[in-house]
Amino acid sequence: MPYITLSTDFGTRQGSQAVLHGVIYQIAPEAVITDLTHEIAAQDIREANFVVDSNAFFFPPGTIHVIVVDPGVGTDRRAIAARIGEHYFVAPDNGVLSACLARAAREGWPTEFVDLDKPQYWLPNLTNTFHGRDLFAPVGAHLASGVPLSAMGTPCDDPLTIPLWGAVRREDGRVEGEVIYIDDFGNAICSILPDEIAHLPLPDGVEVELCGAAIEGMVKTFGDSEYGTDTLIALWDSSGYLLVSENNGTGGKVIKPRPGDPVVVRRLN
Amino acid sequence: MPYITLSTDFGTRQGSQAVLHGVIYQIAPEAVITDLTHEIAAQDIREANFVVDSNAFFFPPGTIHVIVVDPGVGTDRRAIAARIGEHYFVAPDNGVLSACLARAAREGWPTEFVDLDKPQYWLPNLTNTFHGRDLFAPVGAHLASGVPLSAMGTPCDDPLTIPLWGAVRREDGRVEGEVIYIDDFGNAICSILPDEIAHLPLPDGVEVELCGAAIEGMVKTFGDSEYGTDTLIALWDSSGYLLVSENNGTGGKVIKPRPGDPVVVRRLN
Amino acid sequence: MPYITLSTDFGTRQGSQAVLHGVIYQIAPEAVITDLTHEIAAQDIREANFVVDSNAFFFPPGTIHVIVVDPGVGTDRRAIAARIGEHYFVAPDNGVLSACLARAAREGWPTEFVDLDKPQYWLPNLTNTFHGRDLFAPVGAHLASGVPLSAMGTPCDDPLTIPLWGAVRREDGRVEGEVIYIDDFGNAICSILPDEIAHLPLPDGVEVELCGAAIEGMVKTFGDSEYGTDTLIALWDSSGYLLVSENNGTGGKVIKPRPGDPVVVRRLN
Repeated sequence: MPYITLSTDFGTRQGSQAVLHGVIYQIAPEAVITDLTHEIAAQDIREANFVVDSNAFFFPPGTIHVIVVDPGVGTDRRAIAARIGEHYFVAPDNGVLSACLARAAREGWPTEFVDLDKPQYWLPNLTNTFHGRDLFAPVGAHLASGVPLSAMGTPCDDPLTIPLWGAVRREDGRVEGEVIYIDDFGNAICSILPDEIAHLPLPDGVEVELCGAAIEGMVKTFGDSEYGTDTLIALWDSSGYLLVSENNGTGGKVIKPRPGDPVVVRRLN
Repeated sequence: MPYITLSTDFGTRQGSQAVLHGVIYQIAPEAVITDLTHEIAAQDIREANFVVDSNAFFFPPGTIHVIVVDPGVGTDRRAIAARIGEHYFVAPDNGVLSACLARAAREGWPTEFVDLDKPQYWLPNLTNTFHGRDLFAPVGAHLASGVPLSAMGTPCDDPLTIPLWGAVRREDGRVEGEVIYIDDFGNAICSILPDEIAHLPLPDGVEVELCGAAIEGMVKTFGDSEYGTDTLIALWDSSGYLLVSENNGTGGKVIKPRPGDPVVVRRLN
Repeated sequence: MPYITLSTDFGTRQGSQAVLHGVIYQIAPEAVITDLTHEIAAQDIREANFVVDSNAFFFPPGTIHVIVVDPGVGTDRRAIAARIGEHYFVAPDNGVLSACLARAAREGWPTEFVDLDKPQYWLPNLTNTFHGRDLFAPVGAHLASGVPLSAMGTPCDDPLTIPLWGAVRREDGRVEGEVIYIDDFGNAICSILPDEIAHLPLPDGVEVELCGAAIEGMVKTFGDSEYGTDTLIALWDSSGYLLVSENNGTGGKVIKPRPGDPVVVRRLN
């Protein structure tokens, strides 16, 4: 089964996300399509990086991930398709694959890129304002129907990558990162991975600081805080990152973290 | 075709609902997945009961319903799978199946339960914060791929049930229930079923009282009220329950009912 | 593969959109269902016209489009099914197909209609408040499973059509239309098509006026305005209509257009 996921900033009100399904079925009638998200903040390439990278690799090998967060639509920005490990990606060349490429580097996965310059794999009428429908979905569908990546464009090896969440800074007994994403429960997902604080006395001998609040120790899960109280907790999120949460995972009441806010984990005295 | 539905409180912004699709396709490539809802209010087990029970049984026999409203994730709450009539359910054992079980009791359907204690049917790395992805979706997918319910865990017969919407109170010529759910049009769905007021002189000889407003008689459908006015009407909802609505089904302007508010149907003098 | 799209004003919170999937799978187990939109404004037949017409015809020939925006549910309004060109539509007969029928007239496509009066193709219990579930989804599914349109009801040739966005008025060097729809980025889609202003000196010799703002010339794409500024631009939208946008397609800050607002394109002196 050829699986395709769609990640966009279109919303789901206007049917612009659904028209991608229609275009895909015209080319790849057997495709199985999953709406990964259509609620990326408008033109927020950084947020798209986090959401796609956190979820794409849980799909079966061979899945084709179409990403349309495309402030440069109709300009001379390139359109690219990529193989990253065993997954395929089709997207504007605007840095939206940076997190997946960083993961590939960490994991030692092979990568391959083409500059999508073969109009025979697009819709006949390419508008200037909707390459999602007219170019990215058709290319994803042709991949799903068996056209090889290499046929779809000219090989290239210089996809644009952008700086993402701040590199973690380490000092003696102190590690600093930043908030990446606020989830729908109001929890703050932070740019600190387990390896980066493994030298600290976890779970009880550390303090986590965010937005002026200090949290003593890390806990295992949401249920370790008392429900209905405003207790802040720090724990490992299912995406692998440090998470700061309030009130049994229904946060956002005591502190109001935002992407980019600094977070610090330090050794308790 | 193995049909699977997903009901969660994840929202659809972060991709957490989509990652369940990816995990399911890895295990059951032919599964046909429907997002029943991902907009249950955060951790609202009562609301999940209403939404799942109102819709699940319209799916084909054999459908597997995965429900992840899970405030106790990572604690020692059990995970269970159930057969209720001809449908399967996979969920935390926190009362989220109470309405479906009440329906099974009313209808005389057989039920069967297992305590999900066989990690070979989960993802290899069980996080503490996302059993939807790591446990419930994989178990649902294994059911879809043909693994029998009984292989997935130890039989049990004591699933947790919780009190739901208030039992209807009947006095002479007066029946009292409560608001269960406010729908997207602002209509109030109330805990009164046709049988419970069949002894009253319907449709014209009754008065329905909610939030201080009194509505004389019951009507057949939304179009029986004048559009653009604020007329309140009482009618039978498609879920089987009493519904109180304003302005041709676009309510919420005159009265502001909330779940738990009392509603009374009484004989007119 | 029998493709079905669903367009409703149900939202996605209550599961009412998902129950249509369940009902369809009972009748047409192989159906491939796309949620075109469930976020039509409540009972907004005009908005449904725009969204369905803009997207439906990108699906494969033979696709069945079920539309449920139905303020008259349970009254004596007719339910109809239609063939428009190579696509099928199932909907209340309330004008929701007007834009698709106008397109058919422009394109010279054949049309065919039936009055859905054969209850054997509905669910056994027709409620008065949810014909989406009880009538329109079953009829769509029977079409998908191979029942011919003509078997489903009595032929008719008088589907209700309603006036849509104002006819474009042309005077010497001046064309007036109106705003049809505000998209999720805040852009205003206007009722002016390329043919209607082809006699004007495009792209640079015209001025577009909307909500008191005057925009000189038309541009090619969003990226032709400077990002982060509040520059207004006019361009051709991917739906074929004139679009007025701000700030690289993230509008709504300088002017606040609303459906029905007049828009004028005039020759510059």
